[in-house]
Amino acid sequence: MEAIFDDIIHKDSKILLALSGGPDSMYLLYRLVEYRKEIPFLLEAAHLHHGLRKEADEDLAFVRRICNEWNVDLIEKQVQVADYAKKHKLGIEEAGRLLRYKFFREHKRKGGMIALAHHLDDQVETMLLRLIRGTGLEGIGGMRVVEGDLFRPLLHMTKKEILDYLQEREIPYILDHTNDEAIYTRNKVRLDIVPSAESINPNFSAVMESFRSMAVEDEDYLKYVARNYYEGNKEAREGEVALKVDLFSESPSIWSRVLRLGIEEVRGDLKNISYEHIRSLEMLKSAETGKGVDLPGLRITKSYGEIIIAKDREEAPFLDHVILQNGAAEFNGHHFLLDGKGADGIRIKDPEAVRIRSRRPGDRIRLKVGNKKIKDIFIDEKIERSKRDHWPLVEEDGEIIWVVGLRKSVRQEEKEWKKLMWTPSPKM
Amino acid sequence: MEAIFDDIIHKDSKILLALSGGPDSMYLLYRLVEYRKEIPFLLEAAHLHHGLRKEADEDLAFVRRICNEWNVDLIEKQVQVADYAKKHKLGIEEAGRLLRYKFFREHKRKGGMIALAHHLDDQVETMLLRLIRGTGLEGIGGMRVVEGDLFRPLLHMTKKEILDYLQEREIPYILDHTNDEAIYTRNKVRLDIVPSAESINPNFSAVMESFRSMAVEDEDYLKYVARNYYEGNKEAREGEVALKVDLFSESPSIWSRVLRLGIEEVRGDLKNISYEHIRSLEMLKSAETGKGVDLPGLRITKSYGEIIIAKDREEAPFLDHVILQNGAAEFNGHHFLLDGKGADGIRIKDPEAVRIRSRRPGDRIRLKVGNKKIKDIFIDEKIERSKRDHWPLVEEDGEIIWVVGLRKSVRQEEKEWKKLMWTPSPKM
Repeated sequence: MEAIFDDIIHKDSKILLALSGGPDSMYLLYRLVEYRKEIPFLLEAAHLHHGLRKEADEDLAFVRRICNEWNVDLIEKQVQVADYAKKHKLGIEEAGRLLRYKFFREHKRKGGMIALAHHLDDQVETMLLRLIRGTGLEGIGGMRVVEGDLFRPLLHMTKKEILDYLQEREIPYILDHTNDEAIYTRNKVRLDIVPSAESINPNFSAVMESFRSMAVEDEDYLKYVARNYYEGNKEAREGEVALKVDLFSESPSIWSRVLRLGIEEVRGDLKNISYEHIRSLEMLKSAETGKGVDLPGLRITKSYGEIIIAKDREEAPFLDHVILQNGAAEFNGHHFLLDGKGADGIRIKDPEAVRIRSRRPGDRIRLKVGNKKIKDIFIDEKIERSKRDHWPLVEEDGEIIWVVGLRKSVRQEEKEWKKLMWTPSPKM
Repeated sequence: MEAIFDDIIHKDSKILLALSGGPDSMYLLYRLVEYRKEIPFLLEAAHLHHGLRKEADEDLAFVRRICNEWNVDLIEKQVQVADYAKKHKLGIEEAGRLLRYKFFREHKRKGGMIALAHHLDDQVETMLLRLIRGTGLEGIGGMRVVEGDLFRPLLHMTKKEILDYLQEREIPYILDHTNDEAIYTRNKVRLDIVPSAESINPNFSAVMESFRSMAVEDEDYLKYVARNYYEGNKEAREGEVALKVDLFSESPSIWSRVLRLGIEEVRGDLKNISYEHIRSLEMLKSAETGKGVDLPGLRITKSYGEIIIAKDREEAPFLDHVILQNGAAEFNGHHFLLDGKGADGIRIKDPEAVRIRSRRPGDRIRLKVGNKKIKDIFIDEKIERSKRDHWPLVEEDGEIIWVVGLRKSVRQEEKEWKKLMWTPSPKM
């Protein structure tokens, strides 16, 4: 803790602490205030009133009083998370998170950092959630102590250590109401999976931390090798990057990371680019000149011994997939609308995890009788060959849940989930 | 499945199938018998009667009948697992496993393989168990399709796919009795953790498989780099291997793997060498000449710019740790005995996970008041400095559970666990 402060904080540091008033952020506030006595640096706190619960007024009064007593400038703001969530068709939790980070970034000093009170229990939950939803070595590395302008000095402490410390020194805090909300999946991890794992190994969070830190070292090394290769072999042109097809004679561990670097350079980020997307590029190794793969916002083509990563032209002939934007999407003339009208619909859990796309080789759907190839469904339903490549499939979290108009998967749907409605293409 | 057979089986293959008669091994038997019609190879089955349950006679009769009908030579043997377990102080499950593999290896043809019916559900459980107990990138790679003389062609299939196939073709099998036994930890994973994870992502086993295959690629690449470094830089002498201390200027990802290769060469295996052991060697980077670290069966010393990995001499001056052998251990004159007599004792869950060792920097124990440094306990108890380095600590699964004679950790003990009894050293 002190060692982390020694490494990161110096007298010119400007730290804005995200202060909910709950135990974690109160602990961090206390430790930062103590540290300020040794090294004077600029410490401010920021509290966002979410406009959701009536206790929020008391919470604000509490952090005001503490900041006043402890001599820390407090920046406060009230928002209406529920309205924002409704307007942008987001979950309450997600809307709150977006608004919080927006608020912190608006008030962070130039060159300063935002201190967050995430601890080891949060870290382990994050790792497990990523593992359950699908990840690779980079993702399993979890949250890092310093990540851009974010500073998380508590990542090595358990919640219990924090609570014990607060109790011992009689440091006041408010209850963590946000944790009582229905954060369905995280609570499943926190209340079911972590306790089960701890009953097998009481040191579970320590071994996860040790696994994590080794994964970070391994990932950093592999990324370093990939970056060296990339810098030495790429050819950057206007709006595109080319790499020699020899790239595929490197280990998959390296070529997949090199391609990610290329995509990041061309597109600016890796959002919506999955590990499966990257893996699917291996087909370019033996593809003919002119063949290519479409990824979100990109077209990647084989051309005379080169792999060319280019931004998607407006007139892209082939749509890999679309995502919902403000609850709506259009795909090859079909229209999809969240909680709207349509010929048929399917319930979905998380609108952000939905993609509408055309079939890919090997695609399958889970039916009562077991996994079935999409191709076989088209055959059974006597869909013309020429139509099959343009047929919309709806996937959520990487699983195909609807061969639109033909079959739905067997997964359990919840009544409270939103319904994605479909209006067929006039050409269908 | 067929593709895996095509890769591995040819007409000179000699395959011994481990056949319990349960659904997994019956499925594999069926597929191998079918494949034999395309490519004639030597297929034999081996069934071990464990002498534990009265249904075992019927099971044997069943596999005899099927092997006869399907024209597969059956090798059978009866053992008394319970007696063996008692004699060697092992758990029933572990004794069964040891005897099974011994039996299979005795009857495997020269140059042949043992086919095992482990499937994706087993693989995911293995990955989770390793993650919970502590692992690194290599361990999370799980079981491999080919591993020495073991051949596991079903690792990509789920249990459900196997059962559906058996049902569709009316292939008979016996119930998996072994799974009904109290395999406490694996059942915890199977019945609690996996269903929770699947309720978050129904594709859980698929994403774990994808994570696993990426981890294997990453580990293979890192090991390849480490092996190149090792072969180019090691100096092998009699009973020892030396590496230049420059090794530590490589990434931890590489130097840790190079040291593992060195240890494996000197000692023959990596048994009981943990990731923490390897990490503890970093102190050699800046250690003075003559300083060293003791690992199980090894002494690793810094000497004039070299790191020397050598077999432990008989007169080893300093004992890193001892493990229980046949339920007993001696450490610096203290005696420990499982379920025996002594001055005091502590319950332990898994005798194989127990180590008795002296303190290391930063050692802590979980007490009611929180984690406490072992050093502070010695101070509180006024233990002389000269005695502290020789004081026995008992750890299980990497956690210190007993500062012998002084403090026990707060972990939950079960009545049915064995008790490790301590008789103090006369010198104490």
